[in-house]
Amino acid sequence: MPEPIVLLTRRATFAAAHRLYDPSLDDAANERLFGKCTNPRGHGHNYVLEVTVRGEVPAGSGMLINLVDLKQFMERCVLEHVDHKHLNEDVPFLAGLNPTVEALAVAFWRQLEGALPAGRLYEVRLEETENNWAVYRGEVSA
Amino acid sequence: MPEPIVLLTRRATFAAAHRLYDPSLDDAANERLFGKCTNPRGHGHNYVLEVTVRGEVPAGSGMLINLVDLKQFMERCVLEHVDHKHLNEDVPFLAGLNPTVEALAVAFWRQLEGALPAGRLYEVRLEETENNWAVYRGEVSA
Amino acid sequence: MPEPIVLLTRRATFAAAHRLYDPSLDDAANERLFGKCTNPRGHGHNYVLEVTVRGEVPAGSGMLINLVDLKQFMERCVLEHVDHKHLNEDVPFLAGLNPTVEALAVAFWRQLEGALPAGRLYEVRLEETENNWAVYRGEVSA
Amino acid sequence: MPEPIVLLTRRATFAAAHRLYDPSLDDAANERLFGKCTNPRGHGHNYVLEVTVRGEVPAGSGMLINLVDLKQFMERCVLEHVDHKHLNEDVPFLAGLNPTVEALAVAFWRQLEGALPAGRLYEVRLEETENNWAVYRGEVSA
Amino acid sequence: MPEPIVLLTRRATFAAAHRLYDPSLDDAANERLFGKCTNPRGHGHNYVLEVTVRGEVPAGSGMLINLVDLKQFMERCVLEHVDHKHLNEDVPFLAGLNPTVEALAVAFWRQLEGALPAGRLYEVRLEETENNWAVYRGEVSA
Amino acid sequence: MPEPIVLLTRRATFAAAHRLYDPSLDDAANERLFGKCTNPRGHGHNYVLEVTVRGEVPAGSGMLINLVDLKQFMERCVLEHVDHKHLNEDVPFLAGLNPTVEALAVAFWRQLEGALPAGRLYEVRLEETENNWAVYRGEVSA
Repeated sequence: MPEPIVLLTRRATFAAAHRLYDPSLDDAANERLFGKCTNPRGHGHNYVLEVTVRGEVPAGSGMLINLVDLKQFMERCVLEHVDHKHLNEDVPFLAGLNPTVEALAVAFWRQLEGALPAGRLYEVRLEETENNWAVYRGEVSA
Repeated sequence: MPEPIVLLTRRATFAAAHRLYDPSLDDAANERLFGKCTNPRGHGHNYVLEVTVRGEVPAGSGMLINLVDLKQFMERCVLEHVDHKHLNEDVPFLAGLNPTVEALAVAFWRQLEGALPAGRLYEVRLEETENNWAVYRGEVSA
Repeated sequence: MPEPIVLLTRRATFAAAHRLYDPSLDDAANERLFGKCTNPRGHGHNYVLEVTVRGEVPAGSGMLINLVDLKQFMERCVLEHVDHKHLNEDVPFLAGLNPTVEALAVAFWRQLEGALPAGRLYEVRLEETENNWAVYRGEVSA
Repeated sequence: MPEPIVLLTRRATFAAAHRLYDPSLDDAANERLFGKCTNPRGHGHNYVLEVTVRGEVPAGSGMLINLVDLKQFMERCVLEHVDHKHLNEDVPFLAGLNPTVEALAVAFWRQLEGALPAGRLYEVRLEETENNWAVYRGEVSA
Repeated sequence: MPEPIVLLTRRATFAAAHRLYDPSLDDAANERLFGKCTNPRGHGHNYVLEVTVRGEVPAGSGMLINLVDLKQFMERCVLEHVDHKHLNEDVPFLAGLNPTVEALAVAFWRQLEGALPAGRLYEVRLEETENNWAVYRGEVSA
Repeated sequence: MPEPIVLLTRRATFAAAHRLYDPSLDDAANERLFGKCTNPRGHGHNYVLEVTVRGEVPAGSGMLINLVDLKQFMERCVLEHVDHKHLNEDVPFLAGLNPTVEALAVAFWRQLEGALPAGRLYEVRLEETENNWAVYRGEVSA
């Protein structure tokens, strides 16, 4: 029997330091490109992470996924690695990455994708400040 | 002549009590599944309901739908049935439903769909807390 | 040596059901006074609780109180008693109280006051909806 | 090599006056249609403008677009024309338009589209109040 | 018997146009002083008005003031005069006033003060944008 | 003639890295006291700074202080020293300070106090996360 297909989102926050720095460029080029965001000792943000799963809502239980489980996936796959950390220095799965908000959204998607049933993960939204955010839905160029 | 097709959203809030309880399971199974959310006397939320319609914006009036009308649809179809109510006990159109945020979003879609011109309703977003929400766009499984 | 005296606040949320009902009045009088807020099966809210302490900031540690400790006080004294509960029925320290937002703010102050060093508690702010809140600072009438 | 395709958003605010008024109708018809929103001397809003671009995130730089550049596009194409202005009277590119939130979203899309590399602009979201907003993604009717 | 003394706040919003213009100065002086805020055709805001009353919470009813009554006071004394209006032109009780956020807060206090029991009004907070607001508590200089 | 005395607030944000570290203690003691907040490479926040001035509103101009001037004071005295910086390493006026939110609020007050006319500065509020903030009003212990 056809069931409704719904999107369900869980929001969490974490605090981290970072600096924008492209390792393939020298310091002067980084300075020209990123200005104050490349300060060598770093700056930081209260990041907001929103993870959306997609799937059928069974008529009986009315539950797509247990939100407590989704919260634990997010903690185990992302939050415990990045909360109160320096993103350029402390996080093995971000090594060598320039931690822009869009590159982080992709990296967090990859961490979560394996831990969820296939096809369940729909969107990762990462907010860096109240004025900037990125959304990744697993799309890749041809 | 081709006209732009736009999404227009109205937000409203309501306060309601509920408990998570799957009527097809016994009390012990509900307790294992839903923990504190199945407290027999219920708990509650300030829900945020966002209804999005989709359609052409005519060059003359510049108006997809009168937002006052959309607000009244939402009040008549959803808000007056659920505001300051217990969702498991007081709402005929929710009878027998386990009121998870995703099941409520689907139920509210069904209430609104008939009251709007065909094809107009685009999305129902329902927020249960600042950390949890569901989105339904009328999609069903094959 | 004089030290600066600062206010420090911790915010937390909880979800609860309640109904407005003055036990000294009959049902008809409650209905006239509280309207939809006295629905017998209750409604509910996402409450926001903000607790403010006041005191000196020592020059060395720069710390008025450890925010982790303040969070634990709030959980032990208030949150674990009210989160996912029905405030008229499930909470011994609220027995017999009409759970208006202002009466709850006073009741939560009294729970917290004994657990903190004397003179530390400065303010309890309780938000019932985005449009209503109460503040209590321990003041009593003459 | 395939690269991830990401959405990146920048948010900005502006304050403007407007009135709803369809120039093809007489005053009485405008009054019937728009009520208090057609007050001849106008009213106003703090608008929130969110512009989303879409594209590949290169593995090296990790940067879809420099957010400083995106902010400057938004200022040059939209904000400096509308901030602290009367939208019915002060803005050449809005002349003759009934400034509903959905018509403004379309007009701002058209201002931005030419200034960005082809295919980059993904969405314009415009919020008129905390309860009303429109989204335009460049779609037109057949 | 001593009763707790509590602050209780109600929040409401309104949309209005205004321009900053000091009638005792000429146009050039207004331009120098207020810049883009003195645009002759005006601009506008979504104002947020928060009215706080102070008083005893009786042990029986637990109610300082009925929030429905407070909402109606605010509507009758302030909101119906200013919502969807031009503050420099449409509002008799603001005639001759330069409508800065601080001058408006004082004017709204004076409108509300007479309608509430003596000593009840504690604070008027008026927010002009997410970055600017004024608070008035009835204080006057010696 | 008596004039109303009003509070006027300006809000701004900045992004910075920091770590909690009391220089008078050894590393193990810092670790016990501050846990994850003392990570040697730091973490960071989007801080929200709100500065409130107090004074008379003259009947003519209706203006306590020009908000553009207040914004510039905040930028010159605080924001340009701390935005996109590491608070333990990059800021001369914070040298030797353990950058808790309450110690920062006091330090920012001292930066602002000299730049404003005597008696004008009323309050500095600093928000570290959506759940923690400090308020300083210039008070010192006896």
